[in-house]
Amino acid sequence: MELKNDERIDDLHRKGYKIIQNTQKFCFGIDAVLLTGFSGVKDKENVLDLGTGTGIIPILLEAKTKGSHFTGLEIQEESVEMAVRSVELNCLEDKISIIQGDIKEAVKLFPLSSFDVITSNPPYMNNNNGIKNNLQPKSIARHEILCTLEDVIKNAASLLKVGGRFYMVHRPSRLPEIIVTLKKYKLEPKRLRFVHPYINKEPNMILIESVRHGKPLLKVEPPLIVYKSVGEYTDEIYEIYGYNR
Amino acid sequence: MELKNDERIDDLHRKGYKIIQNTQKFCFGIDAVLLTGFSGVKDKENVLDLGTGTGIIPILLEAKTKGSHFTGLEIQEESVEMAVRSVELNCLEDKISIIQGDIKEAVKLFPLSSFDVITSNPPYMNNNNGIKNNLQPKSIARHEILCTLEDVIKNAASLLKVGGRFYMVHRPSRLPEIIVTLKKYKLEPKRLRFVHPYINKEPNMILIESVRHGKPLLKVEPPLIVYKSVGEYTDEIYEIYGYNR
Repeated sequence: MELKNDERIDDLHRKGYKIIQNTQKFCFGIDAVLLTGFSGVKDKENVLDLGTGTGIIPILLEAKTKGSHFTGLEIQEESVEMAVRSVELNCLEDKISIIQGDIKEAVKLFPLSSFDVITSNPPYMNNNNGIKNNLQPKSIARHEILCTLEDVIKNAASLLKVGGRFYMVHRPSRLPEIIVTLKKYKLEPKRLRFVHPYINKEPNMILIESVRHGKPLLKVEPPLIVYKSVGEYTDEIYEIYGYNR
Repeated sequence: MELKNDERIDDLHRKGYKIIQNTQKFCFGIDAVLLTGFSGVKDKENVLDLGTGTGIIPILLEAKTKGSHFTGLEIQEESVEMAVRSVELNCLEDKISIIQGDIKEAVKLFPLSSFDVITSNPPYMNNNNGIKNNLQPKSIARHEILCTLEDVIKNAASLLKVGGRFYMVHRPSRLPEIIVTLKKYKLEPKRLRFVHPYINKEPNMILIESVRHGKPLLKVEPPLIVYKSVGEYTDEIYEIYGYNR
């Protein structure tokens, strides 16, 4: 496996899997890892990740679950190309498909109501003042430049089977909009967890599960705390990352 | 002050205030106390409490804040009568008005857009199977028999000034419905806090502040933990209760 400029291979601590990343473009964050810990993929389920970047979520979910097949949809050619090479590097061509395409067009790329599970770690920021024309990979991954929250939710809803689950990581500040938009597209919020950097700090991420045509009743889980002390993760975070200590 | 059968006087640990309660009917819970800790009433503000019961929220808010006037609206005659006696007991007739009336008719009882702050600790339960005809005071206080969540929110929205704040305590399981209904009536959720019985347990209450015609941006606060160990409150809870230890 030959690497290009600024690329590196990182160990994923799961079944020996590795991932190719480009340090100058966009490397996956704790957000994606926590989302894979939160997403309950069951045996033989068919999974789609919207905006998969370099494929971190399908690769980790393949390692952690017994889902039958994992598809990653990504618009940026360079990320798609890296994701494809990572899939090959881990010999996962039979289990993971990486597709280049636009989340806004996802309903045209896949059969409607065909997935058991959809995941997404979408761009968080919608205050795009002055950044609208910035097409740097990091900007596209972080800001709603090429797709909005509603695009993600609307397409997820259409591609999920009835009873299928949509797992998303996002920012607490946008929770009201997230809930209103999920409900607009008949994705009922069923499970919510807040991620706090420290026990006595405000959360900086939410993990939310919604069910297509689910019955209203939300379960809010205990807080997920990232750090026990400066630089030291809590046991639960080490567990999710799969580190052997 | 003469007490009726099953009535007792409880000390509120604030300015020597006391409250008359009936142990056979409905006594205030930690929910109401936490709501008064969460509600930010500023100097000279005019406050309304929807469904005030025996008046715990206006009495505590009068003790804790510099609001100019506090009104409690309550439908149950017996509670109204006890609340009035508690106001007299604390010599607060000039600061607190207790009004008998229906939350569903609140917009007819008070001038529209006239309050700076509205609070409510409404009935939590909407699974009213078999309880619809139960008009016991406890049932009316706990179940949506005489008013629904939407009735409370709709009337609060109409009675608040633009920029006025609505503070509510409720159940986490109903958060999606609460957010959708607040937004429907242009009450923007601005601040949210989850109350957990213990640090590693799911929350069993939410405290939510919304602002009439506010700009969307939710602040989720650190978790509020009730117990440090069995039977022992955390310091923050002792603080909110005003106990001198």
